[in-house]
Amino acid sequence: MKPTKEQISKIRKRYETELFENVIPFWEKHSPDTVNGGFFNCLDRDGTVYDTTKHLWIQGREVWIFSKFYRDIERKPQWLQMAKSGAEFLLKNAMRKEDGRVYFSLTSDGRPVSLQRKIFSECFYVMAFAEYSRASGNKEYLALAKEEFARIWDWAFDWRKVGRPSFEGETPVQNLAVPMILLNLIEELSDGNAQEYSLQVEECVRRLMLHVHPDKKTVFENVAPNGDFVDTPAGRHLNPGHAIEAGWFLQHWAQRLGRKDLEQKAIEIIRWSHDIGWDKEWGGYYYFLDHKGFSPTQLEWNMKLWWPHCEGMYAHLLNYSITGDQMDWNMFEMVDQYAFSHFRDPKFGEWYGYLDRRGEVTHRFKGGPYKCCFHVPRALWLCWRHLQKLEKLETL
Amino acid sequence: MKPTKEQISKIRKRYETELFENVIPFWEKHSPDTVNGGFFNCLDRDGTVYDTTKHLWIQGREVWIFSKFYRDIERKPQWLQMAKSGAEFLLKNAMRKEDGRVYFSLTSDGRPVSLQRKIFSECFYVMAFAEYSRASGNKEYLALAKEEFARIWDWAFDWRKVGRPSFEGETPVQNLAVPMILLNLIEELSDGNAQEYSLQVEECVRRLMLHVHPDKKTVFENVAPNGDFVDTPAGRHLNPGHAIEAGWFLQHWAQRLGRKDLEQKAIEIIRWSHDIGWDKEWGGYYYFLDHKGFSPTQLEWNMKLWWPHCEGMYAHLLNYSITGDQMDWNMFEMVDQYAFSHFRDPKFGEWYGYLDRRGEVTHRFKGGPYKCCFHVPRALWLCWRHLQKLEKLETL
Repeated sequence: MKPTKEQISKIRKRYETELFENVIPFWEKHSPDTVNGGFFNCLDRDGTVYDTTKHLWIQGREVWIFSKFYRDIERKPQWLQMAKSGAEFLLKNAMRKEDGRVYFSLTSDGRPVSLQRKIFSECFYVMAFAEYSRASGNKEYLALAKEEFARIWDWAFDWRKVGRPSFEGETPVQNLAVPMILLNLIEELSDGNAQEYSLQVEECVRRLMLHVHPDKKTVFENVAPNGDFVDTPAGRHLNPGHAIEAGWFLQHWAQRLGRKDLEQKAIEIIRWSHDIGWDKEWGGYYYFLDHKGFSPTQLEWNMKLWWPHCEGMYAHLLNYSITGDQMDWNMFEMVDQYAFSHFRDPKFGEWYGYLDRRGEVTHRFKGGPYKCCFHVPRALWLCWRHLQKLEKLETL
Repeated sequence: MKPTKEQISKIRKRYETELFENVIPFWEKHSPDTVNGGFFNCLDRDGTVYDTTKHLWIQGREVWIFSKFYRDIERKPQWLQMAKSGAEFLLKNAMRKEDGRVYFSLTSDGRPVSLQRKIFSECFYVMAFAEYSRASGNKEYLALAKEEFARIWDWAFDWRKVGRPSFEGETPVQNLAVPMILLNLIEELSDGNAQEYSLQVEECVRRLMLHVHPDKKTVFENVAPNGDFVDTPAGRHLNPGHAIEAGWFLQHWAQRLGRKDLEQKAIEIIRWSHDIGWDKEWGGYYYFLDHKGFSPTQLEWNMKLWWPHCEGMYAHLLNYSITGDQMDWNMFEMVDQYAFSHFRDPKFGEWYGYLDRRGEVTHRFKGGPYKCCFHVPRALWLCWRHLQKLEKLETL
């Protein structure tokens, strides 16, 4: 059944309560490093710091969250202060000056610990400063973000430029992560000005669409440079949560650009990936699958992670807000119910990140090298805003 | 209860049957690449090749197994032929000529795919040629192994020499893997001549013992260069199966050198690591633990892997053959029963590699990038030989 206004309103209130009473307070209370600035991101179930290392994917994402919420939700001084503390820590410590690379992790006082041969630390650095520039009103930060984005664009499609070696026997593939995160980055950088990066957006859309195979109703994580299916473990690799996230990143651009063809494709990407990824026996999204049904070699393939479910909640609600289709609402309900009943921790706040296939919590921490103040609050906020819009519609 | 001779005999027969009828035939039948030589190592449950990539840890280990079995068990021409095929494939393709590094993976026809910033491909290359030189009677291969070992010794304690970057904020730690694998390598290289590498053996024993903290009855995977406990996730990291393996590597040297102090320490390392690693609720060894009880950040920490159980079976039997202590026999029985009832696949042969915490198979393949013709046949062979010795004793 499609939801009534009363039902939408009830769900909207649940998201609101979860975001403002259970999730954000956890990070406000436990993450600030009052000595060195920035955030502790390795936080145990109750917020205890179990590792003082600062991971820069996460520092950038938390700056983004508090900047965004300050701008979109409420001008709370505490939120701006948290964003400022993170941004200043990043500004002082994150970047290797000689080449503009951003480290993967630092000591709590900002000394470099590790650097990835990937571009994602840089991406979250750009997200952080794009949004913080608007929250703080300081345009220099936007210039800094754009300057780093130009470097990322140069590196993005040839990781030899960030130190990845290349060998003669490699099967050339391109990874979905790159065009999708760049689309999201440009959305953040350009903030409503769809023209500014139009060539780059088209290039990212073109590359993203190479991963989408309508004949198989499948989004492949890695494809040949011309988009062909590659019959290796990498080519058969499916990451349903990632594909669903790519779907909503694409949908945002379809709406901005008024592109009906992309709108329809983004809807399908989300629906197909849901159908492929959902565990029919135990519920929840598998983390990884193999297109031909072999066992993925990754040990964690059948675990249920918080972030694909965060992406699924928002992606299905976004689909429903466009299509009004019962199927999209049903998918939203499936993910919403699974997520709220499995990942929440009403006792200490935030969500658990990792469950086994059956849905039992395997890792009690709330923050780690990859889990942080990002997917849960972002999804709750995006869903909350969409539920508010649905509440205001004349008819549903 | 301590076992009777009849019980020992029954167990010995079970190991014999498992090794010669269920495990070795799987690899004989499915792994040879009759076109390019070497072995397919990514084999599905029934032996189907799901990836033609050749991983060199594994190629080296399979050469070692068939060389060792040819020399120790039976001079079967098929075993020598398999070892020869693997050794010639390695000789032709494994090494980067300019610096003696050994690749991590190759295409099936031998073109390089990837190279690790670690020394383990090199270690298994040495193991392969040391044993193959004896099986084949060609001493040039032993010279080759010794030459590569000299390079490994130069690289082993400073991985910057194999391309690992180093950053100012890193907490210096040394990893148990290095001294333990070098001890095992020297055992293989020197084959009974304990004098040849005596300085290196002493240095490896010294370094290994830094990881052993009797006050905590714990073997730490990573310690400070002076052996101190480091209170970070890396420093708190425990890998019980690895520690148990280190115990029996050390015990072999204790026996060779007639060192009673090391004999006792090796016994304790195995017992302590068993007690720490065993899952009291579901049985089996945890893959990883955190010394202070935090959730390890590795997603697979609570899985049950085949190889720690292989190491446990042999290590406890080795302890028992030295101590005659009921406790060591009980530990052997625990691991033996868990392993045989959970990992075996009587239908298609070889053992499964990966179970969830409850003991259910999560990955159906028999060979992958890290699982191969090595731990299962090595452990079955070592246990079988020790059970034969126990059978022959006057009293147990």
